[in-house]
Amino acid sequence: MFPGHPISKLISKHPTPSYTRLPRYTSPRFRIPRARTMSTTAPRADPFRPARRVAGQRQDVWSIVNEAAAASPVQPIVNMGQGFFGYNPPQFAIDAAKEALDRVECNQYSPTKGRPRLKKAIADAFSPSFGRTLNPETEVTITTGANEGMLSAFMGFIEPGDEVIIFEPFFDQYISNIEMPGGTIRYVPLHPPKDGATRTSPASEWTIDYQELESAINPKTKMIVLNSPHNPVGKVFSREELEKIGELCIKHNLIILSDEVYDRLYYVPFTRIATLSPELYERTLTVGSAGKAFYATGWRVGYLIGPEHLIKYVAGAHTRICYSSVSPLQEAAAVAFEQADKTGFWEESRTEMRNKMERFCEVFTELNIPYSDPEGGYFVLANMASVKLPEDYPFPPHVASRPRDFKLCWFLIHEVGVAAIPPTEFYTDANARIAEDYLRFAVCKNDDVLETAKERLRGLKKYIV
Amino acid sequence: MFPGHPISKLISKHPTPSYTRLPRYTSPRFRIPRARTMSTTAPRADPFRPARRVAGQRQDVWSIVNEAAAASPVQPIVNMGQGFFGYNPPQFAIDAAKEALDRVECNQYSPTKGRPRLKKAIADAFSPSFGRTLNPETEVTITTGANEGMLSAFMGFIEPGDEVIIFEPFFDQYISNIEMPGGTIRYVPLHPPKDGATRTSPASEWTIDYQELESAINPKTKMIVLNSPHNPVGKVFSREELEKIGELCIKHNLIILSDEVYDRLYYVPFTRIATLSPELYERTLTVGSAGKAFYATGWRVGYLIGPEHLIKYVAGAHTRICYSSVSPLQEAAAVAFEQADKTGFWEESRTEMRNKMERFCEVFTELNIPYSDPEGGYFVLANMASVKLPEDYPFPPHVASRPRDFKLCWFLIHEVGVAAIPPTEFYTDANARIAEDYLRFAVCKNDDVLETAKERLRGLKKYIV
Repeated sequence: MFPGHPISKLISKHPTPSYTRLPRYTSPRFRIPRARTMSTTAPRADPFRPARRVAGQRQDVWSIVNEAAAASPVQPIVNMGQGFFGYNPPQFAIDAAKEALDRVECNQYSPTKGRPRLKKAIADAFSPSFGRTLNPETEVTITTGANEGMLSAFMGFIEPGDEVIIFEPFFDQYISNIEMPGGTIRYVPLHPPKDGATRTSPASEWTIDYQELESAINPKTKMIVLNSPHNPVGKVFSREELEKIGELCIKHNLIILSDEVYDRLYYVPFTRIATLSPELYERTLTVGSAGKAFYATGWRVGYLIGPEHLIKYVAGAHTRICYSSVSPLQEAAAVAFEQADKTGFWEESRTEMRNKMERFCEVFTELNIPYSDPEGGYFVLANMASVKLPEDYPFPPHVASRPRDFKLCWFLIHEVGVAAIPPTEFYTDANARIAEDYLRFAVCKNDDVLETAKERLRGLKKYIV
Repeated sequence: MFPGHPISKLISKHPTPSYTRLPRYTSPRFRIPRARTMSTTAPRADPFRPARRVAGQRQDVWSIVNEAAAASPVQPIVNMGQGFFGYNPPQFAIDAAKEALDRVECNQYSPTKGRPRLKKAIADAFSPSFGRTLNPETEVTITTGANEGMLSAFMGFIEPGDEVIIFEPFFDQYISNIEMPGGTIRYVPLHPPKDGATRTSPASEWTIDYQELESAINPKTKMIVLNSPHNPVGKVFSREELEKIGELCIKHNLIILSDEVYDRLYYVPFTRIATLSPELYERTLTVGSAGKAFYATGWRVGYLIGPEHLIKYVAGAHTRICYSSVSPLQEAAAVAFEQADKTGFWEESRTEMRNKMERFCEVFTELNIPYSDPEGGYFVLANMASVKLPEDYPFPPHVASRPRDFKLCWFLIHEVGVAAIPPTEFYTDANARIAEDYLRFAVCKNDDVLETAKERLRGLKKYIV
């Protein structure tokens, strides 16, 4: 109807001539919106100004890594960056999804809190490890992935001015999810072992300074976010650690949001903070993910477990965000939870992942690259302090301006063809130096991919000093 | 681990003794949170207080209707309330979903903006009706259903204090989706025909008072939400109406969010406001739904189409809300869009729905119940002014306290076993009287269900005066 009108031409017709002077839609660095000027008669001068919450963020790590991967001379890249699985969900889950697709009610809206069968399957699957009989109608709610589940928890409880404590490094989505309802974040770093550059050590050596933690709490603090098994550190918080954290939460009357999406992948004893005492159950929302549990990160089926007085408001927020979650895959997840115990899937899954981890980390031992040996999950942090980057290496400006791990990441992609994630992305600028020698590798890939990655990483040898 | 501790006991152990005095987690009427009192030393006194945005809403229409349906002496109820389909998606869509489930990459995270194949399929499918070649990479973004897509649009552009105009009656989720980012809503009613209680008339007779519309615009107004074909009115906004609305939007420099999720179901000429001029394209976000298009409301695949300077911030907000959307069903929706034109699906779909509408509305003609004859979509508003409710009918208090349409709804469920939706739920209290004689019926059900509903509705005859 109106071909030949590229946006630039349209914009020149815009009733607000000042509009075209600012290159706002092209510059990724645009951060501070212009002050709004308007009178009661003039049309608004900035009609397309984005909300602050989405305007002008720096380029995210995922797109930097993906673009670097696409531009690398080594093709195809072995992608050990993002934590998606390199293989399919178990056949019982896929079969259940296919069966659900043939049923009319499984293709239509689910109840906003989730399909009854899935809530029941989750209550049944988790009651043993919670040490109590969970009520599927009041203590479980289904969300569109754990991500939207966490957002729903923040939307359900955080008002502007409330504070939330998170540990560094953090899963990056926590930040925007806390800020969207107006929350303020207090960061508390996990401290890596001091000799992490020279010695492989268990992930448990990333520790909490409890004084530092308590001093971050103030009367505005409403929630604390835990993550165990931890991404990217691979730490499984010990019972003693959780007890100390729990004590502080009771003392200061905080809600605990415990992100346990890797809860089936633990290689040391795993404890849920919600199970430590009735007082802790009362204040804890535990987050899980069918996508992580069943190798299906694209299914977007998450869930929260907790006391009714917390769950009902998570569900209320979820209803306002997504209304309801994907029906046929909720049904499939229900069947998968029903099947998993019977078929020994959890044990198989844990053993398989642990084997992948060991298989992959051999190359670090070989190269004398120390790593933080994971106690859970599928990520490993390798310390590349010994990798000497050539001084004149042509890093592009958006990489050169970031901490050393971004350069390591770029270098690995271009020189050996392996993509990993620079973990300073999961830190505030103030604490980024803690992780600038590390790279995060995801081992949830097929064994042949892991072997190719190892073979390629051997190419680093000549850069190791 | 701690059986025998119901929540009431846990709460009695709570460090804040005043806490148990308010029955906050049990009363659905709880509306106004207590003032927060805290000092720098005391733990917060109200740890589990929900955020205002989710606290204390009155019972929503869906749960009222569902509970009424469950309690009715007539079982099973014929449910013509919620707009889910009573039949399956077309076989080509189901087959595509099953095939996707066998592919590793279709079960893992999709790009946050959507799968390339789906964005391309949508660009190809919509370019003809947009009269321009849509760029799938910059002018299309995928969301978790149209609902989360609309929320993403509001999150992308609305800051606290910004105003958004919506027409009454409205899709109820608009309200919370606008309020979540801090927006304020201005309501403008559609005016039904004055003789709607005595004469069946086309939905086009629900009209806009343009002076009323313009007087709702002020310097804080940032967006206007349109919905065509309209739920629940069934109105398809005419080109002339859209031109007048569009003029006001250009004059006052507003973003248009055009909810066109029923865009394939029109029975009179259908116009997209985005296509009326380049100036309007530049400011319009068009929302669509694969779930509505392919009879799969539980698939949660929505999309927005618009200029890059709007779409990029919708996508940015979506990334922060859901991260990415369901992968195998995105792939299935891609194939479905590719197939739909080839197989004549759209025409078949439209004809079929129009036939269902005509088939069902016969009973209203028979009973002399006037209705607003839909020009699009699958909802019909019937005017039940002539149905006399017995004066001593035992309506429960939560129904008795609502407008007459809630009583009509309850009465139909209990007396004839047909569930419909009371449309005053889609109005502010100030304008609810406009719709208090109407009920909304969804005809997207199998023909035998429609026939059963008609047979049951004939039971109303004795109440019609």
